[in-house]
Amino acid sequence: MRKLGVQAVEDIARGAAVMASGGGGDPYLGMVVARQTVEEFGPITLLELDEIPDEARVVVSMGLGAPTVLVEKVPRGTEPEFALQALESACGCAFDALLPSEAGGWNSLHPMLPAARRGLPLLDADGMGRAFPELQMVTWSVFGQKSSPIGVADERGNVMVVETDDNKRAEDLCRGATVMMGGNISLACYGMTGAQAKANSVAGTYTLCEEVGAILRSARANRVDAYDRLMERLGAVELFRGKVQDVERRTTGGFARGIATLEGMDAYRGGIFEMEFQNEFLMARRDGVPVCTAPDLIAAFDVETLTPITGEALKYGCRALVLGIPCAPQWRTPEGLAVVGPAAFGYEGVPYVPVEQRAY
Amino acid sequence: MRKLGVQAVEDIARGAAVMASGGGGDPYLGMVVARQTVEEFGPITLLELDEIPDEARVVVSMGLGAPTVLVEKVPRGTEPEFALQALESACGCAFDALLPSEAGGWNSLHPMLPAARRGLPLLDADGMGRAFPELQMVTWSVFGQKSSPIGVADERGNVMVVETDDNKRAEDLCRGATVMMGGNISLACYGMTGAQAKANSVAGTYTLCEEVGAILRSARANRVDAYDRLMERLGAVELFRGKVQDVERRTTGGFARGIATLEGMDAYRGGIFEMEFQNEFLMARRDGVPVCTAPDLIAAFDVETLTPITGEALKYGCRALVLGIPCAPQWRTPEGLAVVGPAAFGYEGVPYVPVEQRAY
Repeated sequence: MRKLGVQAVEDIARGAAVMASGGGGDPYLGMVVARQTVEEFGPITLLELDEIPDEARVVVSMGLGAPTVLVEKVPRGTEPEFALQALESACGCAFDALLPSEAGGWNSLHPMLPAARRGLPLLDADGMGRAFPELQMVTWSVFGQKSSPIGVADERGNVMVVETDDNKRAEDLCRGATVMMGGNISLACYGMTGAQAKANSVAGTYTLCEEVGAILRSARANRVDAYDRLMERLGAVELFRGKVQDVERRTTGGFARGIATLEGMDAYRGGIFEMEFQNEFLMARRDGVPVCTAPDLIAAFDVETLTPITGEALKYGCRALVLGIPCAPQWRTPEGLAVVGPAAFGYEGVPYVPVEQRAY
Repeated sequence: MRKLGVQAVEDIARGAAVMASGGGGDPYLGMVVARQTVEEFGPITLLELDEIPDEARVVVSMGLGAPTVLVEKVPRGTEPEFALQALESACGCAFDALLPSEAGGWNSLHPMLPAARRGLPLLDADGMGRAFPELQMVTWSVFGQKSSPIGVADERGNVMVVETDDNKRAEDLCRGATVMMGGNISLACYGMTGAQAKANSVAGTYTLCEEVGAILRSARANRVDAYDRLMERLGAVELFRGKVQDVERRTTGGFARGIATLEGMDAYRGGIFEMEFQNEFLMARRDGVPVCTAPDLIAAFDVETLTPITGEALKYGCRALVLGIPCAPQWRTPEGLAVVGPAAFGYEGVPYVPVEQRAY
């Protein structure tokens, strides 16, 4: 058990923007909201997974929608509690602890809001060890847990409760609600026991994000050292350095979708690099050849400052360093790849090869 | 109090397809489902509004979606009960009686399914005295009643409960659910007391539909006599007779939208008639001049058989008789016209003139 203060949540937001693989929402927004929350309500309690009782009631608190919308329609901050209240009212229970669905500049911070306001602990875990675009793309789903009932809320206090046995169907229904509710909403879902959380989550996500965020913060003082420590901490592979030549982006069906094209610089001069995204970067090709695919992470950084660049912030002229990062081991199983492998995103012909084993 | 047997529900389905102003769902489908239901569960009890106790709990049971979808994706018949159960579970109550939202070939029959299966009575009333495309377009809404909480269900048993103070927002949220749930779903909404139902509903809708349906049935024996009785019973105005030359129709955003163009025959030879629809026919123009607008009813019939033609059944070559029918008096108030007058459907420049007062 430890407490997360302002520095910790800022580091988490920054680090989570790396682990989010381009998605998960704007880290600056996340930092502002988290800082305000901690200043107003005090430090947040973080529990390791083995510190939560097996019979405790645990629930996921997450945002759903297009990150492109999030930066224009900034959350009020009460949505996560509205969603939690809707779920508690529907199931006639109260929850003992919260956890995030994924690592993300906004989604890592999301459960901190109701946690701080209610004085509930957070678990140092998530359901992805990164970010993925869809609700069913979590380890809990792979292990057969139901996402329903789901509390859904917008910033005006309009709420829904969704009940379905099929997590992909839950994604469809909540995505439809997202579109009708303005493009970004809050959910409370995947209610589970402490025992289930221990068995089926990716452990240590907040701590990892915090460490990565602290490394990036140190880049202001020594960029080369920070780069080396980052590569080592993440087991990362450098994929490309280049200048963004073009971004095709459309916010459609509750997602930000598109493709970014980079022209090589430094050692990569003459090369072309493409990153396709559905909120998250899912496929990276160098000169037409896949070099990293989901479920491995594709993370972009400003070449000079090592500031993470999320999908919605990519624009013409950005000078980006792109890393490939091995995903959590749960995703490299056949069951995991069925949910988040290349085929799950429409790349039918592309086999999954761990990023560190691909030849360059 | 009286019982509705097979003949009564068949007449109601046929008559409701007239009162639906082109919407409300296919009457043949409604007849088949209603016949099956009565044959399986026995006659359904119909109560006049003054027969329901003031403190009784009453709820609206309705379908939502595009009628074009309904004829391809025939309801299973259990959706209305799923929606009712979801609502009852959310509000921790049981309802004593059901009523329809509107007159419609399918929507008039919709509440009969849970009524027959549960042995609950139906009220001889609705919220429109016709059909309108949107959830907030009911007299209850005009009188300040909330539609929420709303139980929502599809045919697979996926359910939602929607809670919002704003009935137009409820429409948006449920319409979004409709799109994600396959284009046509069931709702249980506008929970109210018997006293509220008496004060704020349009009375006698089932009886009116049944009488109109019986008149249409008699057209097989004597079409001219049936036409005269129909005009008299409804206070209707003949708008046009013509052959359908073109139907532009698209099923989009959970609605069937479009425009039908008719070329005059008989006394109308040389004339052009247009009917615009959003599920229901909302605007009729003869030679470019509005001759009937919402909230008055625009009803189309096969010229030879007087069979009602709903919007989704209109096609090239149909020979149609089109009538204008005065709407329920509640809609002709300023409050009513604000919700369902021409401007509510985007006809900003068109003033509402009662159909029987328009000059021809």
